[in-house]
Amino acid sequence: MDIAGMLTKVREKRPLVHHITNMVTASECANITLLAGGLPVMAHAPEETAEMVAHAGTLVLNIGTLTPAQVEAMLSAGKRANELGVPIVLDPVGAGATTLRSVSARRLLDELTISIIKGNAAETAILAGGAAEIKGVESLAVSGDIAALAAALARAKQTVVAVTGAQDIITDGHRLIEVSNGHPLMAAVVGTGCMSASIIGCFAAVTDNRLDAAVAALVVFNVAAELAAPQAAGPASFKERLFDELYRLEPAVVTARQKITERVIS
Amino acid sequence: MDIAGMLTKVREKRPLVHHITNMVTASECANITLLAGGLPVMAHAPEETAEMVAHAGTLVLNIGTLTPAQVEAMLSAGKRANELGVPIVLDPVGAGATTLRSVSARRLLDELTISIIKGNAAETAILAGGAAEIKGVESLAVSGDIAALAAALARAKQTVVAVTGAQDIITDGHRLIEVSNGHPLMAAVVGTGCMSASIIGCFAAVTDNRLDAAVAALVVFNVAAELAAPQAAGPASFKERLFDELYRLEPAVVTARQKITERVIS
Amino acid sequence: MDIAGMLTKVREKRPLVHHITNMVTASECANITLLAGGLPVMAHAPEETAEMVAHAGTLVLNIGTLTPAQVEAMLSAGKRANELGVPIVLDPVGAGATTLRSVSARRLLDELTISIIKGNAAETAILAGGAAEIKGVESLAVSGDIAALAAALARAKQTVVAVTGAQDIITDGHRLIEVSNGHPLMAAVVGTGCMSASIIGCFAAVTDNRLDAAVAALVVFNVAAELAAPQAAGPASFKERLFDELYRLEPAVVTARQKITERVIS
Repeated sequence: MDIAGMLTKVREKRPLVHHITNMVTASECANITLLAGGLPVMAHAPEETAEMVAHAGTLVLNIGTLTPAQVEAMLSAGKRANELGVPIVLDPVGAGATTLRSVSARRLLDELTISIIKGNAAETAILAGGAAEIKGVESLAVSGDIAALAAALARAKQTVVAVTGAQDIITDGHRLIEVSNGHPLMAAVVGTGCMSASIIGCFAAVTDNRLDAAVAALVVFNVAAELAAPQAAGPASFKERLFDELYRLEPAVVTARQKITERVIS
Repeated sequence: MDIAGMLTKVREKRPLVHHITNMVTASECANITLLAGGLPVMAHAPEETAEMVAHAGTLVLNIGTLTPAQVEAMLSAGKRANELGVPIVLDPVGAGATTLRSVSARRLLDELTISIIKGNAAETAILAGGAAEIKGVESLAVSGDIAALAAALARAKQTVVAVTGAQDIITDGHRLIEVSNGHPLMAAVVGTGCMSASIIGCFAAVTDNRLDAAVAALVVFNVAAELAAPQAAGPASFKERLFDELYRLEPAVVTARQKITERVIS
Repeated sequence: MDIAGMLTKVREKRPLVHHITNMVTASECANITLLAGGLPVMAHAPEETAEMVAHAGTLVLNIGTLTPAQVEAMLSAGKRANELGVPIVLDPVGAGATTLRSVSARRLLDELTISIIKGNAAETAILAGGAAEIKGVESLAVSGDIAALAAALARAKQTVVAVTGAQDIITDGHRLIEVSNGHPLMAAVVGTGCMSASIIGCFAAVTDNRLDAAVAALVVFNVAAELAAPQAAGPASFKERLFDELYRLEPAVVTARQKITERVIS
């Protein structure tokens, strides 16, 4: 997989990534999009989302700090994105934690064609119809094989599912790829999950292969984390270095460090 | 007071701290909660707040960038928290600056059982029925003895009042403790007040002694600030170091540096 | 122009800068205001904006992540600001990108007396009745002479127009000043445009000369950027150093480095 080539494409094309997102990590998501090579725009008023998405390379829907009005804005923008062939990335933050989030995430999946779902293990399990132990927006434990659940969800919704964690799993229901890059400090920074969806958004705008887009984005983010960690004294300096490293990441370094393996779906 | 032991407890128990908070410092509050050892979740839709708080160790209500809809979400979550015995921390940001904030803060105090109020001197004075000079969300001057006002408020509302400033004052109306740790650079970073409420939220989830929880949280935050300041070139690098130092703070260092004194209530 | 003297005045007077702003860069705008010497307050509920602005030195209206409810809050606060003589700074983020933003920006300009408009080239061109290529909130290209468009807009609305870019242009329609300070890394940090409006807000509160206020604010911000850049490893460390440098910026250094030239309006 030519991940380095895709990174170069993102930087050349500078795709607009339209986010309808939460108020906690909006700044981080905007910055990470810019650092990865895209152009971020955040717009959530139902009066403008369908118009804004017409200019976008990708639409990212993130349900953290969700309200019912935001769900309507997401549906309106999402339907327009589907008409125009703009790929949609869904980050189902906190699905399983409350009825509003679970029901809304399922409604987005039912009423829209989603290109890529990016969630943690618990969110993925819940959307796949499985069971999980959730603490707020954190995934504590999942009953069952998360890879099998992700693949089942991908097949049921004809989408790509990316499950982030110590090891990232990306599957379209037929192929399953594991990314082993990354660093534990990522879990000590709020919003690395949200940020990974933004980077996936950048990559989904430059290739039609959604599996490749998700894998490439997660490799790039995780390799930047590996380069940042040795320079960090803790999570905050790690975050700063991670941002800097992503911005200046050389494609050849990505190629040299990428750790992806294809697994048989169990 | 075994502040070091409480810090260890927070890190072991990892309490979920549910915030209904403002859009300015939400990212900072989420990060500081994670760094202190808790798990943050932000959720403000009235459709989900009562459900989310059922999983929480503490509910933090922060009225910065308040709207009437948010007040309803706070009351709904707060009533459920009270039923379940989940402690509530109130940060009355800007009480006294506008009618909406003053009236809303008083309404939250009247209709909910609040475990701990964390405010600056002016906010505390206003809620205690005193007078203060306020500039936006900054406290300029208070007419009268802030310690006496805080103690009166604590007695009237049967709560704990924590007043942050150059010296922090914490009182349940009967005992009054002063924390002398900290650093002036904290005042040059937006949201250190909000962040201190989040850390208090972490500690309130691991002890029933609300006075101890507030004192311990402020000592821990202020000691991290003392360790960060000598490494900083200004407020932004100070904030980064503060976050890192809080994350790696050793309990023995807290014990060695804590400066708390009990005062007679005047 | 005594830019150094104005900076000293901001730090002495500590003006309250009331923002009605977007959810992406609110934290950055609040921090930059504090670092420049002002006191930030963010308040957007229509129930309190008119009351809050009465205490303010300046009102900053930023239409990023705009909603129709926010427009009402801006009009209500803006009318009160006009009655009281509180200057208004408008940042028309994304004007031209969607109908909601273009119409709202024009409505604010029509119904309020705006002291200073701070936009990028595309936003300025659109408000001046020209044409521009826009990608989300980024300005790609403008048809026509941006200086002439800015001057025409300033004359039509009897306001000052500040256009930020590689070179900043500030005009009241009669005089036109160019600021050549700054650094390319500013474009790699989300929100430097929004932040510049906040700093302009600080300076507009300490002088009646609106042209001088805008020029001084942009010089100060850009000089801090020049000092920060050599210390940075990328956009995130640059942002941290920029914040630190702004906070400790010595007036004499501003005087030594300021690069402003007056041009004839074409």
